[in-house]
Amino acid sequence: MATVEELKLRVRELENELIKCKQKQCAMEDAQSLELHRPKIEKMSAEVVDSNPYSRLMALKRMGIVDDYELLLFDYDKVELANMNRLFFQPHQAGLSKVEAAEHTLRNINPDVSFETHNYNITTMENFTHFMDRIRHGGMEEGKPVDLVLSCVDNFEARMAINKACNELGQIWMESGVSENAVSGHIQLIIPGETACFACAPPLVVAANIDEKTLKREGVCAASLPTTMGVVAGILVQNVLKYLLKFGTVSYYLGYNAMQDFFPTMAMKANPQCNDRHCREQQEEYKKREAERPKVEVVQEEEEVVHEDNEWGIELVSEVTDAELQAATGDRPDLPEGITVAYTIPAESSPSGDTVEDTEQSLEELMARMKKL
Amino acid sequence: MATVEELKLRVRELENELIKCKQKQCAMEDAQSLELHRPKIEKMSAEVVDSNPYSRLMALKRMGIVDDYELLLFDYDKVELANMNRLFFQPHQAGLSKVEAAEHTLRNINPDVSFETHNYNITTMENFTHFMDRIRHGGMEEGKPVDLVLSCVDNFEARMAINKACNELGQIWMESGVSENAVSGHIQLIIPGETACFACAPPLVVAANIDEKTLKREGVCAASLPTTMGVVAGILVQNVLKYLLKFGTVSYYLGYNAMQDFFPTMAMKANPQCNDRHCREQQEEYKKREAERPKVEVVQEEEEVVHEDNEWGIELVSEVTDAELQAATGDRPDLPEGITVAYTIPAESSPSGDTVEDTEQSLEELMARMKKL
Repeated sequence: MATVEELKLRVRELENELIKCKQKQCAMEDAQSLELHRPKIEKMSAEVVDSNPYSRLMALKRMGIVDDYELLLFDYDKVELANMNRLFFQPHQAGLSKVEAAEHTLRNINPDVSFETHNYNITTMENFTHFMDRIRHGGMEEGKPVDLVLSCVDNFEARMAINKACNELGQIWMESGVSENAVSGHIQLIIPGETACFACAPPLVVAANIDEKTLKREGVCAASLPTTMGVVAGILVQNVLKYLLKFGTVSYYLGYNAMQDFFPTMAMKANPQCNDRHCREQQEEYKKREAERPKVEVVQEEEEVVHEDNEWGIELVSEVTDAELQAATGDRPDLPEGITVAYTIPAESSPSGDTVEDTEQSLEELMARMKKL
Repeated sequence: MATVEELKLRVRELENELIKCKQKQCAMEDAQSLELHRPKIEKMSAEVVDSNPYSRLMALKRMGIVDDYELLLFDYDKVELANMNRLFFQPHQAGLSKVEAAEHTLRNINPDVSFETHNYNITTMENFTHFMDRIRHGGMEEGKPVDLVLSCVDNFEARMAINKACNELGQIWMESGVSENAVSGHIQLIIPGETACFACAPPLVVAANIDEKTLKREGVCAASLPTTMGVVAGILVQNVLKYLLKFGTVSYYLGYNAMQDFFPTMAMKANPQCNDRHCREQQEEYKKREAERPKVEVVQEEEEVVHEDNEWGIELVSEVTDAELQAATGDRPDLPEGITVAYTIPAESSPSGDTVEDTEQSLEELMARMKKL
């Protein structure tokens, strides 16, 4: 039987071991949290030191600097091991929602950014209403609209939902996409009422120049190349920076054909006979604004008219005529080399100018039509 | 004074607490190691399930699949917080060598890749010798040369070292770069003896079209935009895939002007009066190989001669004449729109064809000359 002295000794031993164990646990927790975070920064500094996370961006101060960053993320999907070949997710994040995993990684890299994440499918009625509300009221200054909407989705329904929301709200957005064969992609700037929306004409894609049959098969999941996605993501966010910071020429449409390293560009006006009622309304408002704008005197005959309120210095070069666009349901518009339409809409189902259905219905119909194709 | 019973109770309590603490510690350790690794995969599977890390790449099987991946990384630098705006490093890696941090992240994403890292400056004599040895003997099959060398550096000395090594070894490589103003970049394929090497002519860069003075100042560190770097990295690795997997058209030179979204391309033959002795030797060997090649009968008059051993299907379209290239020291060659030379070499210091110095010396001289500029 243990004596009191022996027991006291044992208690001291155990207490010491427990303290050590708890210390180690704390150290592990500290290490984890230290490793994973840098503190927030009160004010961006331009100081030229390697420990300044903003030094490389502030060197571009004269080109303009984004004052504050806020990111609203919408995605219904979960991280899978199959995403590792191209996305910035890591294996230990498999199973998390993509928005949650993205927020975690991005907040870790830059704790100065504000995040708002929504793990839902924007195409269902209830979520769509909420999605639209966040575009309208979720800007940096809460209650104001966001600056820009980026579409980085892989299906027609989601694009049409974004298009519908942005047309109704008059929200400028940029669309992006990569072809199913993974070797081409595009970005597109859509200004409701001014440039062609996603419903104005069949979506434009980069001509493939390869035999699709050798690449696509039933039951095979979509291919993806990190390189093509990286280039398309790069030109998309470059276009965003040029638009928000007002430098360079913002592209209306920029395609990428990876097989030939060919990058076609173009611009397309909105279609007066667009199926989306809100697009047509935006076109009317755009026309009114244009008519009310003070006329700019042309000093040199050769000089082009510069739009005074065109504050980000882009130029609308419509290479596709209204007539071509009006004929886009059924026929292919005359597009620049390297660009083609994703599909043509059968002529018999194109609505006449006078009896256009309610937008909601058109969207449903288009979706149904797409599924049949 | 505590009784034996009280002490026994205390011992049991402490034992239980200690067990819990150790269990928690183990769980934390397990979580860490589980989180950070997926097991190696014996054989790449094309199975269409989201848990298969290769499913999205294997969907492109008909375009070719890299059988095995090996990465040799050379870099002397350390991870800094200032890198976070554009590289895939994370804040907790600040202070690690870049090669170590890169290997850790990449191995974590894909444990099936082999890595060999060298944390040194390739331009010092001793390291250069080791660097050359690893190019010559560090291929997938140990002892054989590597398939391709990629240059992703930010200075002239490092590029000249890679150029010198690849000329001596007849090693095909790809060069890449981003301008100091961060809004343009390029990639270039160099086949020793066949296409212009880095010493054949002043390096080609994309014309800036912006006032450099508004962007560059003394004492300001180089700007960097993640977007420009992302696009250049994307087109570089896309070119690598096209070259290694033999699909599409491999680009000899592809520029990127982010301000105008302009992507000029070109090709340039090797310069018979190149300063690098090994480049001139490679040109002689290339000529011999071309002369010894069995002649291909031209069936149709209009058809171009196809090089039989041109196994990756690229076509050498030299848009710059030999005369222009020979005149490149001093004068600017007649380059396609959007491409310009980084500098011109003063005519008085260009060596005559007969008395070219030893390559080693030329490199030193060029470096000295560059520093004076």
